[in-house]
Amino acid sequence: MTADVLPDPLSTLLRAPAGAVNLAALDTRATPGYPGEGKADADAHREALAPQLADLQELLFADGRANPEGAKRVLMILQGMDTSGKGGIMRHAIGLVDPQGVHIKAFKAPTAEERRHHYLWRIEKALPEPGMIGIFDRSQYEDVLVVRVESLVPKAEWEKRYDEINAFELKLVEQGYTLIKCYLHMSKEEQAARLQARLDDPHKHWKFTPGDIDARAKWDAYMEAYTAVLERTNTDYAPWYVLPADRKWYRNWAAAALLREKLAGLNLTWPVADFDVDEQKARLAAEG
Amino acid sequence: MTADVLPDPLSTLLRAPAGAVNLAALDTRATPGYPGEGKADADAHREALAPQLADLQELLFADGRANPEGAKRVLMILQGMDTSGKGGIMRHAIGLVDPQGVHIKAFKAPTAEERRHHYLWRIEKALPEPGMIGIFDRSQYEDVLVVRVESLVPKAEWEKRYDEINAFELKLVEQGYTLIKCYLHMSKEEQAARLQARLDDPHKHWKFTPGDIDARAKWDAYMEAYTAVLERTNTDYAPWYVLPADRKWYRNWAAAALLREKLAGLNLTWPVADFDVDEQKARLAAEG
Repeated sequence: MTADVLPDPLSTLLRAPAGAVNLAALDTRATPGYPGEGKADADAHREALAPQLADLQELLFADGRANPEGAKRVLMILQGMDTSGKGGIMRHAIGLVDPQGVHIKAFKAPTAEERRHHYLWRIEKALPEPGMIGIFDRSQYEDVLVVRVESLVPKAEWEKRYDEINAFELKLVEQGYTLIKCYLHMSKEEQAARLQARLDDPHKHWKFTPGDIDARAKWDAYMEAYTAVLERTNTDYAPWYVLPADRKWYRNWAAAALLREKLAGLNLTWPVADFDVDEQKARLAAEG
Repeated sequence: MTADVLPDPLSTLLRAPAGAVNLAALDTRATPGYPGEGKADADAHREALAPQLADLQELLFADGRANPEGAKRVLMILQGMDTSGKGGIMRHAIGLVDPQGVHIKAFKAPTAEERRHHYLWRIEKALPEPGMIGIFDRSQYEDVLVVRVESLVPKAEWEKRYDEINAFELKLVEQGYTLIKCYLHMSKEEQAARLQARLDDPHKHWKFTPGDIDARAKWDAYMEAYTAVLERTNTDYAPWYVLPADRKWYRNWAAAALLREKLAGLNLTWPVADFDVDEQKARLAAEG
């Protein structure tokens, strides 16, 4: 399906590198796989994905209804620094899809109840139902990102989590989940400009907290933590994709296009009726 | 905000009549308040609402963040016979709104756990969080609709529920909820055409169940049950709106326009920063 559109699948172009990762060497302004000219035609290219996304989402939903035990589920995980565009992708990429087929979950600092449980407890609870597309705004990866940078648990504890998360994700894939793990790769300079814009516009003040600057002050430690994530949890069954995120128009297009490619790759077909169609037509005609 | 667009607010035009309701006298093909010519320009008129809906939803969301205790919440309830367009409104009207600000809940036949609780238990659990727009696909009203028509509980029990629901909704309104209760008013002939279309198209078979014809056979009993709902729960604090639903393009526009009107009526303003803006600008500049 995507072969007509993209010489190489976007998933190949965006796949995080194997082995040692040098984030500084990955261009935050790149536009791999983008089929148009640039910003000027980006809305059109993104919106052109909507009809395919609609069909593919409906196929997934129908599969979930017809086959709830064995149904496919899709889970897109969005991770990135503040202002890298998790919300923008929700609005402009996920917003292309029928909202009935999407379940968005934003993970904040754990509540008191969540802290009493294993860190994967709240993740398990938020997994999408059969036939649904789940979108996580932050995820289990916060437990090796902010938790590591802020030393919220001892190193001996977070060190174990990379393997735990891999095992958890393998179990999900074996249950029929497709995971689409996206790291939104933004430069430190771009973040400064976006935070400045929030501070300059009174209508955006509600999006800002002084904690955003606290986190920014630890930029290098966060990059180190993201590097470890990409090096240690970039499995073949649940790969990481690095979306260059300095150009919002590309980031939004890429998220939509990657979702489209992954949905198409499920090769779903319409469920066959589990009732006698002619009999029901006759009943409808008789009922009038 | 709506005064420029509509001579009479759409909420006035669609408000269910006071007193005795004669559903047969309400035109299912009417287009009250529609500002355009008809089907040909309906997509454009509906999509023209998107920017206002986006701003208003963001204001509501910001209010929820800034003021979680006293925040406004909006709850749209969609009720109607099978194929009347609850799903179509989700896709084409609610789909205009940022999906991060919307919480959709579809109520099915109660689960075993839900049946062990009061019928409002599952409703309470699904209410939108502060700052969110909740959309119910079916609702507490099923407990005086299918429950009444199918005699799932004794009459003495469902008879009490109209007053209970009114009391429940009054409590919600006092807590800051705005309720938008929409009855999708479709003719029996139109339903036949839509069921036929589902039976004729193998890609739509998954949407059909033989139970749809069973319910259709009880059309008059359902109309009687809807009439009782409109007569007994059409309160000033939580009014019913009757959306003529035979023309899909009108129904979808009307749902979006009604939501827009109700959001605008909240008269929300952007939250004022709870931090020192200049101090944070200086921190950002120093951080570089």
